[in-house]
Amino acid sequence: MRHFEWPVTVYIEDTDAGGIVYYVNYLKYMERARSEWLKRFGITQYELFQKGIQLVVHRLDCRYAKPARLDDELLVSAVIESHTSCRLRFHQEVTRRGEGLCDARVDIACMDATRGKPTRWPTALAAALNG
Amino acid sequence: MRHFEWPVTVYIEDTDAGGIVYYVNYLKYMERARSEWLKRFGITQYELFQKGIQLVVHRLDCRYAKPARLDDELLVSAVIESHTSCRLRFHQEVTRRGEGLCDARVDIACMDATRGKPTRWPTALAAALNG
Amino acid sequence: MRHFEWPVTVYIEDTDAGGIVYYVNYLKYMERARSEWLKRFGITQYELFQKGIQLVVHRLDCRYAKPARLDDELLVSAVIESHTSCRLRFHQEVTRRGEGLCDARVDIACMDATRGKPTRWPTALAAALNG
Amino acid sequence: MRHFEWPVTVYIEDTDAGGIVYYVNYLKYMERARSEWLKRFGITQYELFQKGIQLVVHRLDCRYAKPARLDDELLVSAVIESHTSCRLRFHQEVTRRGEGLCDARVDIACMDATRGKPTRWPTALAAALNG
Repeated sequence: MRHFEWPVTVYIEDTDAGGIVYYVNYLKYMERARSEWLKRFGITQYELFQKGIQLVVHRLDCRYAKPARLDDELLVSAVIESHTSCRLRFHQEVTRRGEGLCDARVDIACMDATRGKPTRWPTALAAALNG
Repeated sequence: MRHFEWPVTVYIEDTDAGGIVYYVNYLKYMERARSEWLKRFGITQYELFQKGIQLVVHRLDCRYAKPARLDDELLVSAVIESHTSCRLRFHQEVTRRGEGLCDARVDIACMDATRGKPTRWPTALAAALNG
Repeated sequence: MRHFEWPVTVYIEDTDAGGIVYYVNYLKYMERARSEWLKRFGITQYELFQKGIQLVVHRLDCRYAKPARLDDELLVSAVIESHTSCRLRFHQEVTRRGEGLCDARVDIACMDATRGKPTRWPTALAAALNG
Repeated sequence: MRHFEWPVTVYIEDTDAGGIVYYVNYLKYMERARSEWLKRFGITQYELFQKGIQLVVHRLDCRYAKPARLDDELLVSAVIESHTSCRLRFHQEVTRRGEGLCDARVDIACMDATRGKPTRWPTALAAALNG
Protein backbone atom coordinates (compact mmCIF):
# COMPACT_ATOMS: atom_id res chain seq x y z
CA MET A 1 0.00 0.00 0.00
CA ARG A 2 2.30 2.71 -1.23
CA HIS A 3 -0.47 5.11 -2.12
CA PHE A 4 -2.91 6.30 0.50
CA GLU A 5 -5.47 9.07 0.79
CA TRP A 6 -7.24 10.57 3.75
CA PRO A 7 -10.16 13.04 3.73
CA VAL A 8 -9.93 16.28 5.70
CA THR A 9 -12.62 18.92 6.29
CA VAL A 10 -11.63 22.56 6.80
CA TYR A 11 -12.99 24.05 10.03
CA ILE A 12 -12.71 27.58 11.42
CA GLU A 13 -9.80 26.51 13.64
CA ASP A 14 -7.79 25.95 10.43
CA THR A 15 -8.37 29.35 8.82
CA ASP A 16 -6.67 32.72 9.26
CA ALA A 17 -7.56 36.38 8.79
CA GLY A 18 -6.88 36.02 5.06
CA GLY A 19 -10.07 33.93 4.91
CA ILE A 20 -8.15 30.81 3.85
CA VAL A 21 -6.43 27.84 5.52
CA TYR A 22 -3.41 29.07 7.46
CA TYR A 23 -0.53 27.62 5.42
CA VAL A 24 1.09 25.98 8.44
CA ASN A 25 -2.02 23.88 9.01
CA TYR A 26 -1.62 21.87 5.80
CA LEU A 27 1.32 20.24 7.56
CA LYS A 28 -1.07 19.07 10.28
CA TYR A 29 -3.35 17.63 7.61
CA MET A 30 -0.37 15.78 6.12
CA GLU A 31 0.54 14.32 9.49
CA ARG A 32 -3.04 13.09 9.98
CA ALA A 33 -2.74 11.21 6.67
CA ARG A 34 0.60 9.68 7.71
CA SER A 35 -0.87 8.65 11.09
CA GLU A 36 -3.78 6.92 9.38
CA TRP A 37 -1.41 5.30 6.88
CA LEU A 38 0.54 3.82 9.83
CA LYS A 39 -2.64 2.44 11.36
CA ARG A 40 -3.16 0.39 8.18
CA PHE A 41 -0.14 -1.64 9.35
CA GLY A 42 -1.56 -2.03 12.83
CA ILE A 43 0.82 0.63 14.19
CA THR A 44 -0.25 3.52 16.41
CA GLN A 45 2.08 6.27 17.49
CA TYR A 46 0.84 5.89 21.04
CA GLU A 47 2.25 2.34 21.10
CA LEU A 48 5.48 3.50 19.49
CA PHE A 49 5.88 6.22 22.16
CA GLN A 50 5.36 3.50 24.82
CA LYS A 51 8.24 1.54 23.25
CA GLY A 52 10.46 4.64 23.16
CA ILE A 53 10.23 5.01 19.38
CA GLN A 54 9.51 8.36 17.76
CA LEU A 55 8.90 9.09 14.10
CA VAL A 56 10.66 12.42 13.70
CA VAL A 57 10.26 14.84 10.78
CA HIS A 58 13.74 16.09 9.95
CA ARG A 59 12.99 17.89 6.70
CA LEU A 60 9.95 19.42 5.08
CA ASP A 61 9.87 20.92 1.59
CA CYS A 62 6.42 22.28 0.87
CA ARG A 63 5.06 24.20 -2.12
CA TYR A 64 1.79 26.09 -2.04
CA ALA A 65 -0.20 26.60 -5.24
CA LYS A 66 -3.77 27.52 -4.28
CA PRO A 67 -5.52 28.11 -0.96
CA ALA A 68 -8.27 26.04 0.64
CA ARG A 69 -11.23 27.75 2.30
CA LEU A 70 -13.60 27.18 5.19
CA ASP A 71 -15.84 24.11 4.72
CA ASP A 72 -13.73 22.71 1.85
CA GLU A 73 -13.51 18.94 1.61
CA LEU A 74 -9.90 17.99 0.88
CA LEU A 75 -7.99 14.80 0.17
CA VAL A 76 -4.47 14.34 1.52
CA SER A 77 -2.27 11.68 -0.06
CA ALA A 78 0.73 9.85 1.40
CA VAL A 79 3.03 8.09 -1.03
CA ILE A 80 6.42 6.61 -0.15
CA GLU A 81 9.07 7.91 -2.52
CA SER A 82 12.04 6.11 -0.99
CA HIS A 83 13.17 4.46 2.23
CA THR A 84 16.14 2.95 4.05
CA SER A 85 16.18 0.85 7.23
CA CYS A 86 15.52 3.92 9.40
CA ARG A 87 14.45 6.72 7.04
CA LEU A 88 11.41 7.33 4.88
CA ARG A 89 10.55 10.01 2.36
CA PHE A 90 6.88 10.73 1.73
CA HIS A 91 5.46 12.73 -1.11
CA GLN A 92 2.15 14.19 -0.01
CA GLU A 93 -0.38 16.26 -1.84
CA VAL A 94 -3.47 18.15 -0.72
CA THR A 95 -6.20 18.28 -3.36
CA ARG A 96 -9.74 19.65 -3.65
CA ARG A 97 -11.89 17.81 -6.19
CA GLY A 98 -8.78 16.82 -8.15
CA GLU A 99 -7.15 20.27 -8.05
CA GLY A 100 -3.70 20.39 -6.38
CA LEU A 101 -3.47 22.96 -3.57
CA CYS A 102 -0.09 22.13 -2.08
CA ASP A 103 2.39 19.31 -1.98
CA ALA A 104 5.41 18.39 0.11
CA ARG A 105 8.29 16.06 0.52
CA VAL A 106 8.48 14.98 4.15
CA ASP A 107 11.57 13.16 5.43
CA ILE A 108 11.06 11.06 8.52
CA ALA A 109 13.51 9.18 10.71
CA CYS A 110 12.73 6.36 13.10
CA MET A 111 14.37 7.39 16.38
CA ASP A 112 15.14 5.63 19.64
CA ALA A 113 13.90 8.35 22.00
CA THR A 114 16.06 7.37 25.00
CA ARG A 115 19.35 7.13 23.06
CA GLY A 116 18.46 9.97 20.65
CA LYS A 117 19.67 7.85 17.71
CA PRO A 118 18.09 6.42 14.56
CA THR A 119 16.73 2.90 14.92
CA ARG A 120 15.09 0.35 12.61
CA TRP A 121 11.42 0.57 11.66
CA PRO A 122 8.98 -1.57 13.65
CA THR A 123 8.76 -5.08 12.08
CA ALA A 124 5.23 -4.67 10.68
CA LEU A 125 6.25 -1.50 8.89
CA ALA A 126 9.59 -2.87 7.65
CA ALA A 127 7.77 -5.87 6.15
CA ALA A 128 5.32 -3.57 4.37
CA LEU A 129 8.08 -1.30 3.06
CA ASN A 130 10.03 -4.21 1.60
CA GLY A 131 6.98 -6.24 0.56
CA MET B 1 -32.41 16.71 15.33
CA ARG B 2 -31.62 18.10 18.73
CA HIS B 3 -29.02 15.45 19.54
CA PHE B 4 -25.99 15.04 17.33
CA GLU B 5 -22.63 13.24 17.58
CA TRP B 6 -19.44 13.60 15.60
CA PRO B 7 -16.35 11.34 15.75
CA VAL B 8 -12.91 12.84 16.34
CA THR B 9 -9.52 11.12 16.26
CA VAL B 10 -6.68 12.43 18.44
CA TYR B 11 -3.52 13.27 16.45
CA ILE B 12 -0.13 14.49 17.63
CA GLU B 13 -1.10 18.08 16.79
CA ASP B 14 -3.71 17.85 19.57
CA THR B 15 -1.43 16.66 22.38
CA ASP B 16 0.90 18.47 24.76
CA ALA B 17 4.01 17.69 26.80
CA GLY B 18 1.82 16.08 29.47
CA GLY B 19 1.22 13.28 26.93
CA ILE B 20 -2.51 14.07 26.74
CA VAL B 21 -4.82 16.25 24.65
CA TYR B 22 -4.09 19.91 25.36
CA TYR B 23 -7.23 21.01 27.21
CA VAL B 24 -7.83 23.97 24.90
CA ASN B 25 -8.16 21.63 21.93
CA TYR B 26 -11.38 19.99 23.17
CA LEU B 27 -13.00 23.31 22.33
CA LYS B 28 -11.88 22.85 18.71
CA TYR B 29 -13.41 19.38 18.72
CA MET B 30 -16.67 20.86 20.00
CA GLU B 31 -16.70 23.44 17.26
CA ARG B 32 -16.16 20.73 14.62
CA ALA B 33 -19.28 18.97 15.96
CA ARG B 34 -21.30 22.21 15.84
CA SER B 35 -20.10 22.88 12.27
CA GLU B 36 -21.20 19.42 11.16
CA TRP B 37 -24.49 19.85 13.00
CA LEU B 38 -25.11 23.03 10.98
CA LYS B 39 -24.39 21.23 7.72
CA ARG B 40 -27.28 18.86 8.51
CA PHE B 41 -29.56 21.88 7.88
CA GLY B 42 -27.79 22.70 4.62
CA ILE B 43 -25.90 25.57 6.26
CA THR B 44 -22.15 26.13 5.93
CA GLN B 45 -20.29 28.83 7.80
CA TYR B 46 -18.57 29.83 4.59
CA GLU B 47 -21.94 30.80 3.13
CA LEU B 48 -22.91 32.59 6.33
CA PHE B 49 -19.66 34.61 6.22
CA GLN B 50 -20.50 35.54 2.59
CA LYS B 51 -23.85 36.87 3.83
CA GLY B 52 -22.21 38.81 6.65
CA ILE B 53 -23.49 36.50 9.36
CA GLN B 54 -21.19 35.18 12.09
CA LEU B 55 -22.00 32.62 14.76
CA VAL B 56 -20.09 34.03 17.73
CA VAL B 57 -19.28 32.17 20.95
CA HIS B 58 -19.94 34.62 23.77
CA ARG B 59 -19.62 32.25 26.70
CA LEU B 60 -17.96 28.91 27.37
CA ASP B 61 -18.24 26.95 30.59
CA CYS B 62 -16.18 23.79 30.34
CA ARG B 63 -15.43 21.06 32.92
CA TYR B 64 -12.65 18.54 32.50
CA ALA B 65 -12.92 15.12 34.13
CA LYS B 66 -10.43 12.79 32.40
CA PRO B 67 -7.83 13.31 29.68
CA ALA B 68 -7.79 11.86 26.16
CA ARG B 69 -4.58 10.49 24.70
CA LEU B 70 -2.88 10.17 21.33
CA ASP B 71 -4.79 7.90 18.90
CA ASP B 72 -7.96 7.90 21.01
CA GLU B 73 -11.24 7.72 19.11
CA LEU B 74 -13.67 10.19 20.66
CA LEU B 75 -17.29 11.16 20.17
CA VAL B 76 -18.37 14.79 20.52
CA SER B 77 -22.05 15.54 21.06
CA ALA B 78 -23.99 18.73 20.34
CA VAL B 79 -27.37 19.10 22.02
CA ILE B 80 -29.44 22.30 22.07
CA GLU B 81 -30.42 23.20 25.62
CA SER B 82 -32.28 26.39 24.85
CA HIS B 83 -32.62 29.06 22.18
CA THR B 84 -34.14 32.44 21.37
CA SER B 85 -34.46 34.18 18.00
CA CYS B 86 -30.75 35.07 17.97
CA ARG B 87 -29.11 33.01 20.71
CA LEU B 88 -28.46 29.31 21.22
CA ARG B 89 -27.07 27.30 24.11
CA PHE B 90 -25.40 23.99 23.34
CA HIS B 91 -24.51 21.32 25.81
CA GLN B 92 -21.61 19.33 24.42
CA GLU B 93 -19.80 16.32 25.75
CA VAL B 94 -16.62 14.54 24.69
CA THR B 95 -16.69 10.81 25.39
CA ARG B 96 -14.38 7.82 24.81
CA ARG B 97 -16.22 4.49 24.56
CA GLY B 98 -19.02 5.86 26.71
CA GLU B 99 -16.78 7.45 29.33
CA GLY B 100 -17.22 11.22 29.78
CA LEU B 101 -13.96 13.19 29.42
CA CYS B 102 -15.20 16.75 29.41
CA ASP B 103 -18.39 18.69 28.84
CA ALA B 104 -19.31 22.30 28.19
CA ARG B 105 -22.12 24.76 27.85
CA VAL B 106 -21.44 26.92 24.81
CA ASP B 107 -23.51 30.07 24.26
CA ILE B 108 -23.66 31.32 20.70
CA ALA B 109 -25.12 34.45 19.19
CA CYS B 110 -26.06 35.03 15.58
CA MET B 111 -24.39 38.31 14.64
CA ASP B 112 -24.67 40.69 11.71
CA ALA B 113 -20.95 41.20 11.08
CA THR B 114 -21.24 44.61 9.40
CA ARG B 115 -23.48 46.17 12.06
CA GLY B 116 -21.91 44.24 14.95
CA LYS B 117 -25.37 43.42 16.31
CA PRO B 118 -27.37 40.25 16.98
CA THR B 119 -29.57 39.13 14.11
CA ARG B 120 -32.09 36.34 13.50
CA TRP B 121 -30.97 32.79 12.67
CA PRO B 122 -30.95 31.80 8.99
CA THR B 123 -34.40 30.52 7.95
CA ALA B 124 -33.41 26.86 7.59
CA LEU B 125 -31.97 26.85 11.10
CA ALA B 126 -34.87 28.79 12.64
CA ALA B 127 -37.31 26.28 11.16
CA ALA B 128 -35.34 23.39 12.63
CA LEU B 129 -35.07 25.03 16.06
CA ASN B 130 -38.81 25.63 16.23
CA GLY B 131 -39.80 22.39 14.48
CA MET C 1 2.10 39.22 43.95
CA ARG C 2 -1.54 38.43 43.50
CA HIS C 3 -1.96 40.64 40.44
CA PHE C 4 0.09 40.00 37.34
CA GLU C 5 -0.03 41.11 33.71
CA TRP C 6 1.64 39.77 30.61
CA PRO C 7 1.72 41.37 27.12
CA VAL C 8 0.64 39.37 24.08
CA THR C 9 0.83 40.34 20.40
CA VAL C 10 -1.74 38.98 17.94
CA TYR C 11 -0.16 37.18 14.98
CA ILE C 12 -1.77 35.57 11.93
CA GLU C 13 -1.56 32.15 13.58
CA ASP C 14 -4.08 33.44 16.17
CA THR C 15 -6.73 34.70 13.75
CA ASP C 16 -9.56 32.99 11.90
CA ALA C 17 -11.61 33.55 8.74
CA GLY C 18 -13.77 36.05 10.65
CA GLY C 19 -10.72 38.36 10.60
CA ILE C 20 -10.44 38.28 14.41
CA VAL C 21 -8.67 36.22 17.06
CA TYR C 22 -10.12 32.70 17.09
CA TYR C 23 -11.93 32.61 20.44
CA VAL C 24 -10.20 29.42 21.55
CA ASN C 25 -6.82 31.13 21.34
CA TYR C 26 -7.52 33.58 24.18
CA LEU C 27 -7.22 30.53 26.43
CA LYS C 28 -3.68 30.03 25.16
CA TYR C 29 -2.92 33.67 25.94
CA MET C 30 -4.25 33.14 29.46
CA GLU C 31 -2.05 30.11 29.95
CA ARG C 32 1.00 32.08 28.81
CA ALA C 33 0.24 34.64 31.54
CA ARG C 34 -0.14 31.91 34.18
CA SER C 35 3.15 30.31 33.06
CA GLU C 36 4.97 33.62 33.40
CA TRP C 37 3.29 34.22 36.76
CA LEU C 38 4.69 30.87 37.96
CA LYS C 39 8.19 31.81 36.83
CA ARG C 40 8.05 34.80 39.20
CA PHE C 41 8.24 32.21 42.00
CA GLY C 42 11.15 30.42 40.37
CA ILE C 43 8.88 27.64 39.12
CA THR C 44 8.87 26.31 35.57
CA GLN C 45 6.41 23.73 34.33
CA TYR C 46 9.25 21.78 32.78
CA GLU C 47 10.70 21.22 36.25
CA LEU C 48 7.27 20.33 37.63
CA PHE C 49 6.82 17.74 34.85
CA GLN C 50 10.23 16.28 35.77
CA LYS C 51 8.98 15.90 39.36
CA GLY C 52 5.73 14.29 38.20
CA ILE C 53 3.59 17.32 39.04
CA GLN C 54 1.04 18.68 36.60
CA LEU C 55 -1.05 21.81 36.92
CA VAL C 56 -4.34 20.71 35.42
CA VAL C 57 -7.19 22.98 34.32
CA HIS C 58 -10.39 21.32 35.52
CA ARG C 59 -12.83 24.12 34.81
CA LEU C 60 -12.94 27.14 32.52
CA ASP C 61 -15.70 29.74 32.49
CA CYS C 62 -14.97 32.32 29.82
CA ARG C 63 -17.01 35.30 28.60
CA TYR C 64 -16.30 37.10 25.36
CA ALA C 65 -17.22 40.77 24.97
CA LYS C 66 -15.24 42.17 22.02
CA PRO C 67 -12.84 40.62 19.52
CA ALA C 68 -9.12 41.30 19.10
CA ARG C 69 -7.64 41.70 15.65
CA LEU C 70 -4.39 41.01 13.84
CA ASP C 71 -1.44 43.06 15.18
CA ASP C 72 -3.30 44.10 18.34
CA GLU C 73 -1.19 44.53 21.47
CA LEU C 74 -3.03 42.94 24.39
CA LEU C 75 -2.50 42.61 28.13
CA VAL C 76 -3.48 39.41 29.91
CA SER C 77 -3.92 39.50 33.68
CA ALA C 78 -3.70 36.68 36.21
CA VAL C 79 -5.21 37.31 39.63
CA ILE C 80 -5.75 34.66 42.30
CA GLU C 81 -9.32 34.70 43.53
CA SER C 82 -9.08 31.84 45.98
CA HIS C 83 -6.95 28.79 46.79
CA THR C 84 -6.72 25.67 48.93
CA SER C 85 -3.72 23.39 49.53
CA CYS C 86 -4.09 21.82 46.07
CA ARG C 87 -6.51 24.04 44.11
CA LEU C 88 -6.33 27.56 42.73
CA ARG C 89 -8.86 29.81 41.04
CA PHE C 90 -7.57 32.50 38.73
CA HIS C 91 -9.53 35.40 37.37
CA GLN C 92 -7.97 36.46 34.09
CA GLU C 93 -8.81 39.26 31.74
CA VAL C 94 -7.64 40.15 28.25
CA THR C 95 -7.59 43.88 27.57
CA ARG C 96 -6.60 46.19 24.72
CA ARG C 97 -5.62 49.67 25.81
CA GLY C 98 -7.79 49.34 28.90
CA GLU C 99 -10.80 47.90 27.10
CA GLY C 100 -11.94 44.45 28.29
CA LEU C 101 -12.18 41.88 25.48
CA CYS C 102 -12.77 38.69 27.42
CA ASP C 103 -12.38 37.34 30.92
CA ALA C 104 -12.38 33.94 32.53
CA ARG C 105 -12.35 32.02 35.76
CA VAL C 106 -9.82 29.21 35.47
CA ASP C 107 -9.76 26.47 38.13
CA ILE C 108 -6.50 24.60 38.43
CA ALA C 109 -5.54 21.56 40.46
CA CYS C 110 -2.05 20.47 41.43
CA MET C 111 -1.86 16.80 40.41
CA ASP C 112 0.56 13.98 41.11
CA ALA C 113 0.84 12.65 37.55
CA THR C 114 1.84 9.09 38.48
CA ARG C 115 -0.91 8.55 41.05
CA GLY C 116 -3.46 10.70 39.20
CA LYS C 117 -4.43 12.42 42.46
CA PRO C 118 -4.33 16.00 43.77
CA THR C 119 -1.16 16.90 45.64
CA ARG C 120 0.12 19.97 47.53
CA TRP C 121 1.54 22.99 45.70
CA PRO C 122 5.33 23.18 45.40
CA THR C 123 6.80 24.86 48.50
CA ALA C 124 7.79 28.12 46.77
CA LEU C 125 4.28 28.57 45.44
CA ALA C 126 2.58 27.56 48.71
CA ALA C 127 4.67 30.16 50.57
CA ALA C 128 3.66 32.84 48.09
CA LEU C 129 -0.03 31.91 48.23
CA ASN C 130 -0.10 32.09 52.02
CA GLY C 131 2.33 35.02 52.31
CA MET D 1 18.31 45.93 8.43
CA ARG D 2 18.79 42.65 6.67
CA HIS D 3 19.40 40.68 9.85
CA PHE D 4 16.76 40.53 12.55
CA GLU D 5 16.12 38.42 15.64
CA TRP D 6 13.04 37.94 17.75
CA PRO D 7 12.76 36.11 21.12
CA VAL D 8 10.20 33.34 21.59
CA THR D 9 9.30 31.46 24.78
CA VAL D 10 8.04 27.87 24.55
CA TYR D 11 4.67 27.35 26.26
CA ILE D 12 2.61 24.18 26.73
CA GLU D 13 0.46 25.10 23.72
CA ASP D 14 3.59 24.60 21.56
CA THR D 15 4.54 21.13 22.77
CA ASP D 16 3.35 17.64 21.81
CA ALA D 17 3.17 14.20 23.40
CA GLY D 18 6.85 13.66 22.58
CA GLY D 19 7.59 16.27 25.27
CA ILE D 20 9.10 18.67 22.74
CA VAL D 21 7.95 21.53 20.50
CA TYR D 22 5.61 20.16 17.83
CA TYR D 23 7.70 20.58 14.67
CA VAL D 24 4.95 22.46 12.82
CA ASN D 25 5.00 25.20 15.46
CA TYR D 26 8.51 26.40 14.59
CA LEU D 27 6.90 27.75 11.43
CA LYS D 28 4.62 29.88 13.58
CA TYR D 29 7.66 31.17 15.46
CA MET D 30 9.28 32.07 12.15
CA GLU D 31 6.19 33.97 11.04
CA ARG D 32 6.19 35.94 14.29
CA ALA D 33 9.77 37.01 13.54
CA ARG D 34 8.83 38.07 9.99
CA SER D 35 5.81 40.01 11.31
CA GLU D 36 7.99 41.88 13.77
CA TRP D 37 10.60 42.48 11.06
CA LEU D 38 7.87 44.11 8.92
CA LYS D 39 6.84 46.36 11.79
CA ARG D 40 10.36 47.80 11.79
CA PHE D 41 9.43 49.41 8.46
CA GLY D 42 6.19 50.73 9.86
CA ILE D 43 4.20 48.00 8.12
CA THR D 44 1.55 45.87 9.80
CA GLN D 45 -0.19 42.99 8.09
CA TYR D 46 -3.53 44.31 9.31
CA GLU D 47 -2.99 47.45 7.23
CA LEU D 48 -1.84 45.40 4.25
CA PHE D 49 -5.02 43.26 4.48
CA GLN D 50 -7.06 46.49 4.53
CA LYS D 51 -5.34 47.51 1.27
CA GLY D 52 -5.98 44.10 -0.28
CA ILE D 53 -2.34 43.01 -0.10
CA GLN D 54 -1.35 39.62 1.26
CA LEU D 55 2.14 38.29 1.90
CA VAL D 56 1.78 34.67 0.86
CA VAL D 57 4.20 31.85 1.65
CA HIS D 58 4.55 29.82 -1.54
CA ARG D 59 7.43 27.59 -0.52
CA LEU D 60 8.93 26.37 2.74
CA ASP D 61 12.05 24.24 3.03
CA CYS D 62 12.73 23.46 6.65
CA ARG D 63 15.37 21.26 8.31
CA TYR D 64 15.13 20.11 11.89
CA ALA D 65 18.31 19.35 13.87
CA LYS D 66 17.42 19.35 17.57
CA PRO D 67 14.18 19.78 19.49
CA ALA D 68 13.18 22.64 21.82
CA ARG D 69 11.42 21.90 25.09
CA LEU D 70 8.86 23.48 27.37
CA ASP D 71 10.04 26.78 28.92
CA ASP D 72 12.98 27.13 26.52
CA GLU D 73 13.94 30.66 25.53
CA LEU D 74 14.61 30.74 21.80
CA LEU D 75 15.78 33.28 19.25
CA VAL D 76 14.32 33.33 15.75
CA SER D 77 16.22 35.13 13.02
CA ALA D 78 14.95 36.59 9.75
CA VAL D 79 17.52 37.36 7.06
CA ILE D 80 16.73 38.29 3.47
CA GLU D 81 18.62 36.05 1.07
CA SER D 82 17.27 37.51 -2.16
CA HIS D 83 14.38 39.53 -3.51
CA THR D 84 12.69 40.77 -6.67
CA SER D 85 9.97 43.42 -7.05
CA CYS D 86 7.30 41.03 -5.75
CA ARG D 87 9.13 38.09 -4.19
CA LEU D 88 11.33 37.64 -1.15
CA ARG D 89 13.34 34.74 0.18
CA PHE D 90 14.06 34.63 3.89
CA HIS D 91 16.56 32.42 5.62
CA GLN D 92 15.41 31.88 9.19
CA GLU D 93 16.98 30.01 12.06
CA VAL D 94 15.72 29.02 15.49
CA THR D 95 18.46 28.89 18.11
CA ARG D 96 18.71 28.20 21.85
CA ARG D 97 21.69 29.85 23.53
CA GLY D 98 23.60 29.83 20.25
CA GLU D 99 22.74 26.24 19.34
CA GLY D 100 20.84 25.78 16.04
CA LEU D 101 17.59 23.83 16.38
CA CYS D 102 16.06 24.28 12.95
CA ASP D 103 16.34 26.51 9.93
CA ALA D 104 14.27 27.23 6.86
CA ARG D 105 14.13 29.00 3.56
CA VAL D 106 10.77 30.73 3.26
CA ASP D 107 9.67 32.13 -0.12
CA ILE D 108 7.10 34.87 0.04
CA ALA D 109 5.14 36.64 -2.67
CA CYS D 110 3.38 39.98 -2.42
CA MET D 111 -0.13 39.34 -3.74
CA ASP D 112 -3.03 41.53 -4.77
CA ALA D 113 -5.79 39.63 -2.95
CA THR D 114 -8.66 40.77 -5.18
CA ARG D 115 -6.93 39.96 -8.48
CA GLY D 116 -5.06 36.93 -7.11
CA LYS D 117 -1.85 38.14 -8.78
CA PRO D 118 1.61 39.18 -7.62
CA THR D 119 2.01 42.89 -6.99
CA ARG D 120 4.87 45.20 -5.96
CA TRP D 121 6.01 45.50 -2.35
CA PRO D 122 4.63 48.43 -0.35
CA THR D 123 6.85 51.51 -0.86
CA ALA D 124 8.37 51.52 2.63
CA LEU D 125 9.46 47.92 2.24
CA ALA D 126 10.71 48.34 -1.34
CA ALA D 127 12.87 51.29 -0.21
CA ALA D 128 14.35 49.20 2.60
CA LEU D 129 15.02 46.22 0.34
CA ASN D 130 16.86 48.33 -2.20
CA GLY D 131 18.49 50.64 0.37
